[in-house]
Amino acid sequence: MSLLVTGSIGIDSVKTPHGQVDDVLGGSAVYFSLAARVFSPVRLVGVVGDDFPQVHADLLAERGIDLAGLERRAGSKTFRWRGEYTGNMDQAQTLQTDLNVLAEAGPKIPPALRDSRYVFLANTHPALQRQLLGQLTKPELVVCDTMNLWIETERQELLLTLAAVNGVVLNDGEARMLTERDNLVVAGKKILEFGPKFVVIKKGEHGAMLVSAEGVFVLPAYPTGELRDPTGAGDSFAGGMMGYLAAADSWDRKELRAALAHGTITASYTIEDFSVNRLLQIDRQAVLTRLREFCDMMRFE
Amino acid sequence: MSLLVTGSIGIDSVKTPHGQVDDVLGGSAVYFSLAARVFSPVRLVGVVGDDFPQVHADLLAERGIDLAGLERRAGSKTFRWRGEYTGNMDQAQTLQTDLNVLAEAGPKIPPALRDSRYVFLANTHPALQRQLLGQLTKPELVVCDTMNLWIETERQELLLTLAAVNGVVLNDGEARMLTERDNLVVAGKKILEFGPKFVVIKKGEHGAMLVSAEGVFVLPAYPTGELRDPTGAGDSFAGGMMGYLAAADSWDRKELRAALAHGTITASYTIEDFSVNRLLQIDRQAVLTRLREFCDMMRFE
Repeated sequence: MSLLVTGSIGIDSVKTPHGQVDDVLGGSAVYFSLAARVFSPVRLVGVVGDDFPQVHADLLAERGIDLAGLERRAGSKTFRWRGEYTGNMDQAQTLQTDLNVLAEAGPKIPPALRDSRYVFLANTHPALQRQLLGQLTKPELVVCDTMNLWIETERQELLLTLAAVNGVVLNDGEARMLTERDNLVVAGKKILEFGPKFVVIKKGEHGAMLVSAEGVFVLPAYPTGELRDPTGAGDSFAGGMMGYLAAADSWDRKELRAALAHGTITASYTIEDFSVNRLLQIDRQAVLTRLREFCDMMRFE
Repeated sequence: MSLLVTGSIGIDSVKTPHGQVDDVLGGSAVYFSLAARVFSPVRLVGVVGDDFPQVHADLLAERGIDLAGLERRAGSKTFRWRGEYTGNMDQAQTLQTDLNVLAEAGPKIPPALRDSRYVFLANTHPALQRQLLGQLTKPELVVCDTMNLWIETERQELLLTLAAVNGVVLNDGEARMLTERDNLVVAGKKILEFGPKFVVIKKGEHGAMLVSAEGVFVLPAYPTGELRDPTGAGDSFAGGMMGYLAAADSWDRKELRAALAHGTITASYTIEDFSVNRLLQIDRQAVLTRLREFCDMMRFE
């Protein structure tokens, strides 16, 4: 089933205790797409500047990502982010953000892609998320992400967006900030009152939680000793999750739970190497193999 | 199978966003005992002062805890702790600690209890832990806890203790501090090199991890919206775990994993009310009922 993602496409420079990379491919829609394509064809919608290296676009195209919605805007510059992780790497320290083209007009969804049925609105201004959503003709499942900036500065816009989507994916700190509730189960239930049918709370190295009217589902993260660069873990999680759902063409209780597990495993690969390097190497079989191992790690009688 | 615990018996005063209690029953060995007795008879070894309220001792005796090893020392005062939790209550802020009798000579294990086969050495000076261990005649499984203070100030003593026990239970921050490794899987494997056959890393609201030569086992915490007072959660977890193992009279791979799950559920009750209040009300059936619910919360296909 057709899966479309809108979000950032960027050039990252990242330092962690395990090394450093400069000017590598990054951005939420990129991690999402490369994770989701493991399960389902993906249509990427986003804007870059005319400085965006063709090699990056080629790499996405080679992995089967539909780039009809990738706008290369003349005279603009690509979004850039520089960050560092220290200690247990649970939080990035942003050293520099150049919004560049992301500060200009948002992308448009090309007419040929407007029939996409599974849609992920990666983090951007919540009004732009709704504007993108409004261009879709028959969405079956729309899920959005958000960030602390919009929770603090654009709360009313964000609430309108939450009322318009089927699901939301956000991290534990954002869920607490959005609801002013410290307990994540309570926070998740509170977010349901804003409109979405389900809430996925990402807890990084501590796993993920799904809250819906049907109850609570919890998963630890895949316990890896191979963490090198956590950049893109959350977007890869969302990509694996949405890719799985699009392939299943269902988001009922059973498939949503399985989707979180597939997202968890997909993200566990991303963080084993810098940028999208590890994500490029995996296929559905690799995810299924590790998923079986993960299930064994949680099994008890 | 006989289960013995040595550790602190205290009088706590605790404030959380949900209320405040003063001069209530607390201490690691108390939480442990009241959790473990759900599954197995428990022998408590510890020292209190002559100010220890008889009502507290009666309460423990009424719940079937063997108090033959409870020394009421004339002229001494009971250990007291005052603490506060704020925000998401993931860490206690200690406002006052009066070691009192805990700063004096340690307890002795009465001869009649020295044949105990399952033993938990709750947190105390690692040299005292070994001294207590040395009084046992035929231990089958010895597990210890520890704390950041001993990791920082008594590292060599602690390493000797770790070499003498079968298993260790500690929290994520302690595991990282002890090994100078940020990744918990790596930290857990490093601790195995110090001697124990297994390491249980407690992650509070994020669950627990078991690391042994047989691999890694992970569990989320039971997702509760009812957190009122986290005091004693870790000791209740250890109590549920050790009580389950003593009842099973085995600590093979299968039973260890099930023990972590039973510990998780036992601790989930403790935090629903202040002090040991909730723990007093539960039985094995309550734990099994919630454990089934917990399994449902983790099930996917």
